[in-house]
Amino acid sequence: MQKKPLILVTNDDGITAPGIRALIAVMNTLGDVVVVAPDSPQSGMGHAITVDSVLHCNSVVIDDGPQKEYSCSGTPADCVKMAVSTILDRQPDLCVSGINHGSNASINVLYSGTMSAAVEAGIEGVPAIGFSLLDFDWDADFEAAKIHVQKIASEVLSNGLTEGTVLNVNIPKGPKEALKGIKVCRQANGYWKEDFEKRKNPHGKEYYWLSGKFINKDKGEDTDIWALENGYVSVVPVQFDMTAHHMIQKLNTWNL
Amino acid sequence: MQKKPLILVTNDDGITAPGIRALIAVMNTLGDVVVVAPDSPQSGMGHAITVDSVLHCNSVVIDDGPQKEYSCSGTPADCVKMAVSTILDRQPDLCVSGINHGSNASINVLYSGTMSAAVEAGIEGVPAIGFSLLDFDWDADFEAAKIHVQKIASEVLSNGLTEGTVLNVNIPKGPKEALKGIKVCRQANGYWKEDFEKRKNPHGKEYYWLSGKFINKDKGEDTDIWALENGYVSVVPVQFDMTAHHMIQKLNTWNL
Repeated sequence: MQKKPLILVTNDDGITAPGIRALIAVMNTLGDVVVVAPDSPQSGMGHAITVDSVLHCNSVVIDDGPQKEYSCSGTPADCVKMAVSTILDRQPDLCVSGINHGSNASINVLYSGTMSAAVEAGIEGVPAIGFSLLDFDWDADFEAAKIHVQKIASEVLSNGLTEGTVLNVNIPKGPKEALKGIKVCRQANGYWKEDFEKRKNPHGKEYYWLSGKFINKDKGEDTDIWALENGYVSVVPVQFDMTAHHMIQKLNTWNL
Repeated sequence: MQKKPLILVTNDDGITAPGIRALIAVMNTLGDVVVVAPDSPQSGMGHAITVDSVLHCNSVVIDDGPQKEYSCSGTPADCVKMAVSTILDRQPDLCVSGINHGSNASINVLYSGTMSAAVEAGIEGVPAIGFSLLDFDWDADFEAAKIHVQKIASEVLSNGLTEGTVLNVNIPKGPKEALKGIKVCRQANGYWKEDFEKRKNPHGKEYYWLSGKFINKDKGEDTDIWALENGYVSVVPVQFDMTAHHMIQKLNTWNL
């Protein structure tokens, strides 16, 4: 009998978020699951790691599933580092992160704790996928998403991923009948136009809230934003070699 | 008379760090300088942004230079967003981040608040450079580094940078005579092998410190790690399109 795959599950919305509970439910059908996830929400944490303070990590029971779970005080990237180096007794066959409450398409891949956990796993040599649903609601409906999560995770378990790459999967909101299928895409060229809202606290001191609007500068029909706007699940292969190789020759003509 | 360039300066070690004071001194020779930097150390913050709490930002005077300075409560990426959208009255001609106390070569580009600030500026359409000195010491000697900082920043002001790219510059420790020159490189393929140190607090509760050892898997002589180990300043062009374009065709053969 073949050994069941060992699957590490994490997220950035915190270990009790409905999104990770949905992800755990799917992964329990595919392998032996160990959850190592943040004890509190870590949205927007990007690839932050905890270097200047200590970490706590405790075994917890949150639902009646067969998975083992650990709640950690760090960032999503910390959780993956802790899992791979300290908690798990062997290298996992797959790491999945999410299901995030909200999109991580386009430039959000950089700000996303969900995706940074997946990237961290990739750096550690573990095939990894970040999953996000385009619904920020805490009570979002993950049922349609779960179907695609299972399909994509199964494919990664069968095929593996090329070294140095992970997947960024975003899923439109809506019932399963509304989803048109899965599209492999590139990251759309977009950015957030910030609008810091200035307020005063009860003592008269000014403070700001970060808010903004996403601007898609990319008209391509091969992008994640296009796919999502047209009812498809987007799958973007992501690499963590950030070298702009096309610039090397040009820089060599400079007077450096 | 030509208008002087507007230069935004930030970092991740905090606005009072010697590294940023050295960087400000150099930039004052090249243009009009506005500093918007974290009010406390933000090392290892990666591309974190502050979405769940408020930000404070105050005008401060730290030394007797001509620059304007703002101390902000957020991450390095927050500082750049705040500067570009709220503090500056026009788009800066250059954003420089650092000089970081410690290396941001190879995979550290992902964990680095210094580099994330530069990347954030790049996303906002501002030519940007992150500078790091291979010396973690708070009292590190930045004199030799300043020569190369001035040279590289001047070249970027003259030539601009291709849209979608920023520079990751790392500088070996040592006197200027020891530095062999500047090499344009790619990001070395490496990772951190973690070693979480488990301790007990005075009340008997376990906690962990993240520590680890950098492993260079890359034998190439065109990498930043090679350049730094051989006495060169490394310049890596960095992009924030993280798409692994070479994987798209392969994924399209999957049963998705």
